[in-house]
Amino acid sequence: MKIFFIGDIMGSPGRKAVAGLLHKVVDKHQIDLVIANVENASGGIGVTPEVAEQLFQMGIDIMTSGNHIWKHKEIMPYLDANDRILRPANYPEGAPGQGLTVIETAVGESVAVLNLEGRIFMNPLDCPFRTADRELASLPSTIKIILVDMHAEATSEKLALAWYLDGRASAVIGTHTHVQTADERILPGGLGYLTDAGMTGPADGVIGMDRQVIIHRFLTHLPQRFKVASHNLQLQGVVLDIAATGQCQELRRIQMALK
Amino acid sequence: MKIFFIGDIMGSPGRKAVAGLLHKVVDKHQIDLVIANVENASGGIGVTPEVAEQLFQMGIDIMTSGNHIWKHKEIMPYLDANDRILRPANYPEGAPGQGLTVIETAVGESVAVLNLEGRIFMNPLDCPFRTADRELASLPSTIKIILVDMHAEATSEKLALAWYLDGRASAVIGTHTHVQTADERILPGGLGYLTDAGMTGPADGVIGMDRQVIIHRFLTHLPQRFKVASHNLQLQGVVLDIAATGQCQELRRIQMALK
Amino acid sequence: MKIFFIGDIMGSPGRKAVAGLLHKVVDKHQIDLVIANVENASGGIGVTPEVAEQLFQMGIDIMTSGNHIWKHKEIMPYLDANDRILRPANYPEGAPGQGLTVIETAVGESVAVLNLEGRIFMNPLDCPFRTADRELASLPSTIKIILVDMHAEATSEKLALAWYLDGRASAVIGTHTHVQTADERILPGGLGYLTDAGMTGPADGVIGMDRQVIIHRFLTHLPQRFKVASHNLQLQGVVLDIAATGQCQELRRIQMALK
Amino acid sequence: MKIFFIGDIMGSPGRKAVAGLLHKVVDKHQIDLVIANVENASGGIGVTPEVAEQLFQMGIDIMTSGNHIWKHKEIMPYLDANDRILRPANYPEGAPGQGLTVIETAVGESVAVLNLEGRIFMNPLDCPFRTADRELASLPSTIKIILVDMHAEATSEKLALAWYLDGRASAVIGTHTHVQTADERILPGGLGYLTDAGMTGPADGVIGMDRQVIIHRFLTHLPQRFKVASHNLQLQGVVLDIAATGQCQELRRIQMALK
Ligand SMILES: [Fe+2]
Ligand SMILES: [Fe+2]
Ligand SMILES: [Fe+2]
Ligand SMILES: [Fe+2]
Ligand SMILES: [Fe+2]
Ligand SMILES: [Fe+2]
Ligand SMILES: [Fe+2]
Ligand SMILES: [Fe+2]
Repeated sequence: MKIFFIGDIMGSPGRKAVAGLLHKVVDKHQIDLVIANVENASGGIGVTPEVAEQLFQMGIDIMTSGNHIWKHKEIMPYLDANDRILRPANYPEGAPGQGLTVIETAVGESVAVLNLEGRIFMNPLDCPFRTADRELASLPSTIKIILVDMHAEATSEKLALAWYLDGRASAVIGTHTHVQTADERILPGGLGYLTDAGMTGPADGVIGMDRQVIIHRFLTHLPQRFKVASHNLQLQGVVLDIAATGQCQELRRIQMALK
Repeated sequence: MKIFFIGDIMGSPGRKAVAGLLHKVVDKHQIDLVIANVENASGGIGVTPEVAEQLFQMGIDIMTSGNHIWKHKEIMPYLDANDRILRPANYPEGAPGQGLTVIETAVGESVAVLNLEGRIFMNPLDCPFRTADRELASLPSTIKIILVDMHAEATSEKLALAWYLDGRASAVIGTHTHVQTADERILPGGLGYLTDAGMTGPADGVIGMDRQVIIHRFLTHLPQRFKVASHNLQLQGVVLDIAATGQCQELRRIQMALK
Repeated sequence: MKIFFIGDIMGSPGRKAVAGLLHKVVDKHQIDLVIANVENASGGIGVTPEVAEQLFQMGIDIMTSGNHIWKHKEIMPYLDANDRILRPANYPEGAPGQGLTVIETAVGESVAVLNLEGRIFMNPLDCPFRTADRELASLPSTIKIILVDMHAEATSEKLALAWYLDGRASAVIGTHTHVQTADERILPGGLGYLTDAGMTGPADGVIGMDRQVIIHRFLTHLPQRFKVASHNLQLQGVVLDIAATGQCQELRRIQMALK
Repeated sequence: MKIFFIGDIMGSPGRKAVAGLLHKVVDKHQIDLVIANVENASGGIGVTPEVAEQLFQMGIDIMTSGNHIWKHKEIMPYLDANDRILRPANYPEGAPGQGLTVIETAVGESVAVLNLEGRIFMNPLDCPFRTADRELASLPSTIKIILVDMHAEATSEKLALAWYLDGRASAVIGTHTHVQTADERILPGGLGYLTDAGMTGPADGVIGMDRQVIIHRFLTHLPQRFKVASHNLQLQGVVLDIAATGQCQELRRIQMALK
């Protein structure tokens, strides 16, 4: 089965890139399932229910997220009500929503998607490694295809999780840094890995934000009002080919520009 | 002129990869100048004068480094005595060694190399942006080719520096995360950019370290004795083609495995 | 001369405590000069020009601040226009306002007040140690009485600065943690020191904030809307007796409750 | 019952202060139980079994610790074998030793001691709040006297834990910053609280370390070999008077100098 995982969608420019380019990827690679990280989809930070609905309409089947998911309060009941959008599973007990979901695809195969957040240079959440153990153990053994979005800053934490889950999941795809990495590979146990899927949005900013604002912040350390950049829209992500056994057969990085 | 920039060399496996593969890159791309980040070249942390000499012998012309450069005390007088090896320029006044050097290549062109360290999730050094201003201003205007190694954790800080220096330097190449990124590009002012050049060393570890040790550390948060991994050696870096005007014409990422 | 330094004033409860208690301290200890850290004086984060004016009216002569000073944008021109309110001196060149001021007291003595911010677990500003060197060097040698507000998180950074300035300043008083420390002392060179002056505001919260909100944040790591606590108002600070030579003669910690 | 809690004992100067002063506090305040934080007792970082034995001999009944406890490897089996020395209870499952112990005192009363570590600016351990819930729930209901050492950096995390446990524990005493705070109080539910008990060792250093070394580190950000300071020895801690009901009746801070 072919899965397309889309890197962090950044504000309305990111949604525009999805609207203009997703169908091309789906057609070309005969995609069965589309997953996207949406933690920045509304105004560059967080996602509202309206924007989530808009993205579902565009053809995204499952949404993952990360540290910015809580920005807009309205998302909390939406997370509770909708199991097609995830927040990291390792938020403490009692957080709204869920971090794991199972979807049955048109071709009749079940796919589990697990969302985790790293702790190095980030929030002190529950252990992502042990949360992964627990969540994977909760799945029926008939589910073979398992994709993990590891939303984290440190390369070491993402890589360590991949090796930790090799043989137990189909893929670990990293998000959060907004820069696509060039280290796609399949580990010995069949787990497909990419440290970061990249960012879907304006390439002329700094990780999607207006570059003058970000440069000014680095020069002054005064708080700035963030502004999403707007030019040079691109879609980034990775196409995974996963066998019915759950083994990853191929990863192909995607970088497309909207003309 | 063609420059090959090698990503963080990791311990003796990393040196072995350089010994076995560097000449192939030099031959194939007709490289005029070889630069390498050596902050992990001795035992995975730091570099000793002996190892630095060994690496010069292998054909590296200029060495850059980063936060781990101070690990072995013997390197301090060596940094003072040898202007072919750099530490980040934004360490406070009085630090041993230098962060900027100029080399005249065989073809008669002068190349300046500047090393900086980021501050996000790292040491509170002097401002890398203002240090870059000051160091670039210190160069004679006849020097057009200027390469910057921005050793930093956060993608935003690396990208912001690149945009800040566009039009004033030939390239900003990032190091430190040990994972090569796939975002090579030339900014409008002619600056070549890559968020991270990657790591030269064992690919079967976690950022070059033994993966069992790193996984154990993430699971327990007990201190571990780090150990360099040893299998699946690779050379990573980027080849830059820079015009005599200082404008970057092309960047080509390199990933080679030692058979 | 007798100086009263007031620890971080927290929102309207803090201002109420100042209004009700400051005159008692001034009378009892025959205070010549009142200094207060106001970084939290408006709504618990930042300070507006209106609130600053209100506090001047209450008898505060000089205001210092810290990392939260930039919260309300209106304060920026006010900092530029008014040299009786400081922001940390080690913000990069170009920041609004100033970090050092000199006031002539009613008794005819000149007092310099310097505001600094730490970097450990805080913003990567310019070096507070070197900034102190530079700022102190800018003062005329006739000024002997120099008080420093070191706004910092880590005890080590505050203590190190005190030892560094011993013999060159009259006192280093710490702020930012909102908990008064019990380590007042006079260093061998005559510098009076206290790691933290404490907080002026509601004692029944957590560092002045509503405790249910803060506990909920620690339990869930979801973002919370902060709310200033409201009960059990107190004034905290330290009275310093400083000789005309600049040597500190005595420090007396103050903790008063508003009945 | 009267408990004396001793703040972080720093290297051999700290042990010397205990040897010379502990008996005076025990006699004067008729202490029934002595608890001490020993995470820095050997050379300023960590504690060896030999030093722990030495401290038991000096009259310490229960030892607590913190982030530095793992420094000397030999302590691991010792923690497993000896339930009178604790490491924070919120290290992940599988860590050597224990974080909770119960001791029956000479007067026949049982006292539980719980050790926790904060996560703000520290290691991403398990949640200290939920760990406290779980550990307290594991105690027989006949145990009324419960003392908690909250080893943490941030004042907010220590204060929040105290309010969280008010009515469920007899006292929360903070450690780790090495500076005694002046905020001793009894919360409405009867919990005695002090943000930090202070440091037992040389007062002429910076948090117990040689001040020249620490100042040099802040000026250069080069790694330094830490050295314990040696002059002006002092014993710091807090005496608690706790009723048989578990309610704290009084807290008295202790600061004694060794002549
Ligand atoms: Fe993101
Ligand atoms: Fe994120
Ligand atoms: Fe490195
Ligand atoms: Fe590094
Ligand atoms: Fe404050
Ligand atoms: Fe502050
Ligand atoms: Fe300690
Ligand atoms: Fe500690």
